[in-house]
Amino acid sequence: MNEDIYTKSLALHKEHHGKLETVSKVQLDSKEALSLAYSPGVAQVSREIARDPSLAREYTLKRNTVAIISDGSAILGLGNLGALAAIPVMEGKAAIFKEFAGVDAFPICLETQDTEEIIALVKNIAPVFGGINLEDIAAPRCFEIEERLRAELSIPVMHDDQWGAATVTLAGVIISLKLIGKTKEEVKVVLSGIGAAGVATARLLFIYGIKNIVFCDSKGIIYQGREGMTKEKQELLDGSIAIVEAGELADAVKGADIFIGLSKPDVLTPDMVRIMATKPVIFALANPTPEIMPDVAIQAGAYIVATGRSDFPNQINNSLVFPGAFKGVLEKNIPQFKNEMFSTIAQALADFVPDPTPEKIIPNMWDEGIVTLVARTIQNYR
Amino acid sequence: MNEDIYTKSLALHKEHHGKLETVSKVQLDSKEALSLAYSPGVAQVSREIARDPSLAREYTLKRNTVAIISDGSAILGLGNLGALAAIPVMEGKAAIFKEFAGVDAFPICLETQDTEEIIALVKNIAPVFGGINLEDIAAPRCFEIEERLRAELSIPVMHDDQWGAATVTLAGVIISLKLIGKTKEEVKVVLSGIGAAGVATARLLFIYGIKNIVFCDSKGIIYQGREGMTKEKQELLDGSIAIVEAGELADAVKGADIFIGLSKPDVLTPDMVRIMATKPVIFALANPTPEIMPDVAIQAGAYIVATGRSDFPNQINNSLVFPGAFKGVLEKNIPQFKNEMFSTIAQALADFVPDPTPEKIIPNMWDEGIVTLVARTIQNYR
Repeated sequence: MNEDIYTKSLALHKEHHGKLETVSKVQLDSKEALSLAYSPGVAQVSREIARDPSLAREYTLKRNTVAIISDGSAILGLGNLGALAAIPVMEGKAAIFKEFAGVDAFPICLETQDTEEIIALVKNIAPVFGGINLEDIAAPRCFEIEERLRAELSIPVMHDDQWGAATVTLAGVIISLKLIGKTKEEVKVVLSGIGAAGVATARLLFIYGIKNIVFCDSKGIIYQGREGMTKEKQELLDGSIAIVEAGELADAVKGADIFIGLSKPDVLTPDMVRIMATKPVIFALANPTPEIMPDVAIQAGAYIVATGRSDFPNQINNSLVFPGAFKGVLEKNIPQFKNEMFSTIAQALADFVPDPTPEKIIPNMWDEGIVTLVARTIQNYR
Repeated sequence: MNEDIYTKSLALHKEHHGKLETVSKVQLDSKEALSLAYSPGVAQVSREIARDPSLAREYTLKRNTVAIISDGSAILGLGNLGALAAIPVMEGKAAIFKEFAGVDAFPICLETQDTEEIIALVKNIAPVFGGINLEDIAAPRCFEIEERLRAELSIPVMHDDQWGAATVTLAGVIISLKLIGKTKEEVKVVLSGIGAAGVATARLLFIYGIKNIVFCDSKGIIYQGREGMTKEKQELLDGSIAIVEAGELADAVKGADIFIGLSKPDVLTPDMVRIMATKPVIFALANPTPEIMPDVAIQAGAYIVATGRSDFPNQINNSLVFPGAFKGVLEKNIPQFKNEMFSTIAQALADFVPDPTPEKIIPNMWDEGIVTLVARTIQNYR
């Protein structure tokens, strides 16, 4: 199937030479029109903004425009392919921003992959933008870049690989708890993969109140005193109430209610599903090939399976979040994103599924009202 | 008159919240459409570009997109108003790019005004763009930034404040020579104002073959050994065959055929016009108030007067050049601008005026075929 999609996608991109264009919102069909949109009329707009910088929001594209910034170091699941290879992905996001939320967005793909250089650069180009969407920047660099920019910039900054995936996953977890009849206090979770999305998902689960989480990476279970711990892994371990010791993923999943994989293809075996609790819930979110294929998981006894793919039920799709999230902050001039906002969005998304079933635990990005729901939820956050 | 334009311009900018939007060129109205424009289909586009970087021109917006980069240090004639105040001007240019030449353009307004930081930043954001239009960056910083970026980037770089004004001025000079019956070898020129546009105009006049030029700045005539010479002033002085000594502008214009002002309002008096050669030609290009008002100049005996304004005859309008110049290099993937190209464009613009009169020495930006003419001229440059 993918071969066909790949061929068609290349043809589409070649036909249009990309997906994004810039368009004038004003007519320039006469000398008078030009004298208002450009010199001499525009001089007065510049003077007014120089006098009162807050007027940039009234008089320019800043009010509704997001920069989508990538250093090309972690493009989709493809790895470090560099700035040029990142362009089609960022153009696609910009197209989604506009089509789904009416938000203007422009891709900025960077030659540099140096943390300090990226931070300085984003601060230097920030004037034109009302928000910054960081994208496909590798961990752990992405954490520092987002944290520093949130602190040092006066416009909202969100690394979508973290918060998009994490928010939709938490929404799916909330519905899953309802379906399996467990509370957030008693549920046992295994989270495999401690990259950008894994760390943010863990942080959101903690914020929501799920604390019994065993963390695994490619070396197995993460436990106190293990060699080569990162700052983020230590933080997650310290936040969990699970009692853990050294072991493999197969040890971790024993008796677990929910497996969340943000790691690698095929790491979860049918045997592992069989030793989970009754009604096992599987979020197999590695892209494009999940940690376990849905049919295989179901055959091994899984009750709910979610993936990142659109060709299976329960797609964990970060496009449910970012268009509405930025629309929300831009509309109301909200100065910064907070992690807690994404927990309230997850709850709102979960509440948006009226009659959940194991095959329908999350909304669809084409559902009427989704973008507005997300935007309002951020705007109502206190 | 300007008060009215200013009021209308503010209203226009407020109504639309700026002038530029980003628009998707592809439909995203179904899961399948999204799977081609975004994940998973886009993964193959990224892989192909990573394999062969030249494919970015085929598959992305890079092929047709220009960055308009300003540090806000020399906005129109208003001075150093900073990045936010630069946005409406750069948005206006982006709108002109699209409306007149079909070229996509996006404004990047910078917090920094440090030469090295600007150069590093532009190189870091270059992947997304097919060309770089530098704009409203103060002299002498603008010269080094353009020169270095032309040498260090593999996409065309043009500082429009230099080459736009210079090219149209040279076109006007070529027609003026015809009308006053002088050759480029015998004509005597005074050039007042040695900023970005002044330096580039002088360089183009030299390339064209006009060598008898007296240069003036705010301190008067520039002569060998004068204190506080910049690199650029020394270069211009060395390139001229005019014999000069210390003096005022009033001394310089004595017997001159052509006065070119890229300086300040009202520096050219009627008495100065009276002591020029017969049929004096005046380019009074200070904006918005010229070095001498056209009616005053005509009354004092001027034969031809050009200004930067649209409300007088002979507008020296850089919008005649930049849309077609970038269209030309983008279409044919021409790796870099060369100063000599702008001399050939000036000649083409001059040839485009079929029956020149003192009131009509240059084409109008609405003339059918102007953008194509400029693009073809660059493409045919050898």
